[in-house]
Amino acid sequence: MITLGQKHEAVARLLAVELAEVESRFAAELVSDLACVNDLARHLEQYRGKMLRPMLVMLSGLATSPSGELVDEHRTLSTVVEMVHMATLVHDDVLDDQDVRRRATTINRLRGNEAAVMLGDYLISHSYHLSASIGSQTASRLIADATNTVCEGELLQLHNRNNWSLDEQTYFDIIRRKTAALCGVACRLGALYSGADKPTCDAMTQYGELLGNAFQIVDDVLDLTGDAAVVGKSLGKDLEKGKLTLPLIHRLETAHPEQRQELIDLLRTPGPEQSERIGRILAESDSLPYARRRAEHLIDQAKRAISILPDSPAHDTLITIADAVITREF
Amino acid sequence: MITLGQKHEAVARLLAVELAEVESRFAAELVSDLACVNDLARHLEQYRGKMLRPMLVMLSGLATSPSGELVDEHRTLSTVVEMVHMATLVHDDVLDDQDVRRRATTINRLRGNEAAVMLGDYLISHSYHLSASIGSQTASRLIADATNTVCEGELLQLHNRNNWSLDEQTYFDIIRRKTAALCGVACRLGALYSGADKPTCDAMTQYGELLGNAFQIVDDVLDLTGDAAVVGKSLGKDLEKGKLTLPLIHRLETAHPEQRQELIDLLRTPGPEQSERIGRILAESDSLPYARRRAEHLIDQAKRAISILPDSPAHDTLITIADAVITREF
Repeated sequence: MITLGQKHEAVARLLAVELAEVESRFAAELVSDLACVNDLARHLEQYRGKMLRPMLVMLSGLATSPSGELVDEHRTLSTVVEMVHMATLVHDDVLDDQDVRRRATTINRLRGNEAAVMLGDYLISHSYHLSASIGSQTASRLIADATNTVCEGELLQLHNRNNWSLDEQTYFDIIRRKTAALCGVACRLGALYSGADKPTCDAMTQYGELLGNAFQIVDDVLDLTGDAAVVGKSLGKDLEKGKLTLPLIHRLETAHPEQRQELIDLLRTPGPEQSERIGRILAESDSLPYARRRAEHLIDQAKRAISILPDSPAHDTLITIADAVITREF
Repeated sequence: MITLGQKHEAVARLLAVELAEVESRFAAELVSDLACVNDLARHLEQYRGKMLRPMLVMLSGLATSPSGELVDEHRTLSTVVEMVHMATLVHDDVLDDQDVRRRATTINRLRGNEAAVMLGDYLISHSYHLSASIGSQTASRLIADATNTVCEGELLQLHNRNNWSLDEQTYFDIIRRKTAALCGVACRLGALYSGADKPTCDAMTQYGELLGNAFQIVDDVLDLTGDAAVVGKSLGKDLEKGKLTLPLIHRLETAHPEQRQELIDLLRTPGPEQSERIGRILAESDSLPYARRRAEHLIDQAKRAISILPDSPAHDTLITIADAVITREF
C-alpha cells in the first residue's frame, strides 16, 4: 500500500528517511532498565505495518508547510500517533482473541492476555510521556481527545456484539470513533505544526477522518473475503466475535425475511462452515460491492476536502494514498 | 483508614470538601454522549475507596504552601491521579481474575474482560486528557513518567509469577514501581503546585514512595491473613496467581530445605486447602511479623523525610496517615 511508485519518488525518499527516524524514536522511548520489559517490547517489531498514521502526519505537514519542510514536532508526534495505534492493536488482539497479526503470532497468544494488557498499557503510557516532551499541551490535549473517542468506539462496538439489528448509522458511528478519529488527528497535527490556519487544519482533519472511515470499511470487507495469507492476519474474526460490519448489515437490511432469518441463524452459531456459507451468501448479493462503493465515495470526499491545498508533491501523494486505501488487498 | 479523628478536625473538614470536588470532576471528565459508555462508567462508583492518592496531593499541597491554601491545579491533579489509580485497579482485576472489589462484583466479572480492558483504557485516556487541560506539560510529564514505571512494575510482577526463588530485592523493586511511584508523584505534584523548592519536592516524593511501599506490604500481608469481609475483596489471590510476597519470600529464605520444599509444593498446586496450610505455616513463623516490621520501618523513614516541613495541621495529618497505613485492617 505504501509503494508510491516513480511519480512520487522524491516524497517517497524523504518519507523513508523520516519513517526510519520514527522507528528509532519509537524504540528509544520504550527502552527500560528491565530486561523482561525490553524482551516483551521486542515483539512489537513484528506488529510494525504500513505506518499509515505517521505518514499522514508527515504528508499533512509537508502539504501545508509554506517552506515545504518538517519540524521536529512532526517527528515526535508521528511517533506518538504510531505508539497509540500500536497500543490499540495489542489490546484489540486481546479483545478479538486474535492469533496472528502481520504474519506473526500475537502477543496475547505468545505471552498470555495479561502480558498483552500490560504491554498495551505500557505503550499508551509512553505515548503520552513522549507527547508531554514537546513545548505545549495543545498536541497532548488533541491526542487524548482522540484516544477518548477511540475507546468510546471500542466500547460501542463491544456493546453491539451479537446485535443482529445493528444499523448502518451505528456502524458508521463505531468506525468514526475507533478508526477515523486517530487518522483525523494525525492529519490535523501535521498541519498544525506547519503553522496552517484553521480552515486548512479543519480540511486536513476531514481528509484524515474520511480516509480512516474508508480504510475501516475495506478492512471489514477483507475480514469477510480476504485471503489470510495476503492480509497477514487471521480472518473471519468479526463473525466469530459477533461483530456485524457494513456488508452484512446491508445484506440483513435488504434480504427477504426468510433469507434474513437464515443469515441470523448462521451468525448465531459461528464456525468455519457457517462462515463459508455466509461468504457464499454475500458473494451472491450486492452487499460487498455496496460496501466498496461506500468506501469509494468516502475517498472521493477525502480528496475533495484537500482540494483547497496548493499543488505539491505531498498533496499528490495524499491523493495516491487515498486511492490506495480502496485498492489494497491487505 | 481516613477517619482522622478530633485532632485533625479542621483538616478533615477541608479534605471532605476537596474530595467531594474531586469526585465531581472525576464524573464530569468521564461523561460521554454514548449511553453504553456512561452505564459502564457508573460501575466505577463502587470502586471508589479510600482516595488515598488525592489526599496525598491535597495534604502535600497544604503542608508546603506558604499561604496554607490550595490552587485549582491541586484539584485537577488529584482527580487525574485518582483516575490513573482507578484504571490500574480495573486492569489489575482482569490480570488477577478478581471477583470482588470493595464489596462489589468487579467489572471483569460483571461485564467481561473485554469491557474491563476497554474501560481501563478509557480511564487512562481521560486521565491524560484532564492532565493536558492545565497550563504546562510539567505535571503531564511527571505523571506519564510514573505510569511508565507502574506498567514496568506490573510487567516485572507478571514475569515473576510462579518464580519460587523470587528474592526480596526484586519484590521491593516490583512494589516500588507498581505502587510507590504513583504515591510519590502524588506528593510531589502537591508540593510543586504550592511552589515548593526542590529539596521540599524531593522530601515529599520520598515520603510518598516510602508510604506507598509500606502500603503495599500491608496489602500483601492482608491478602494472606485478612478477613475478606473486612478487606472487601477476594483474598488469597496472590497465592492463586503464583505471586510471592514479602512474608512468603522471607519464609522460603529462612526455612529448612525440607520445609522450603513443602511450601513450594503447596505453592505449585494452589487451592483453598493449600492456602489454609500455607496460612498455618506462616502463622507459626516469624515471617508475618517480619513483613510488618519492614513496613513499620518504612513508615518511620517516611515520617522522618517530612521532618523538614514546618509544623502545621496538614503536616500532622500526613504523620497520622502514615501511621494508619500500618494499623489498617482493610
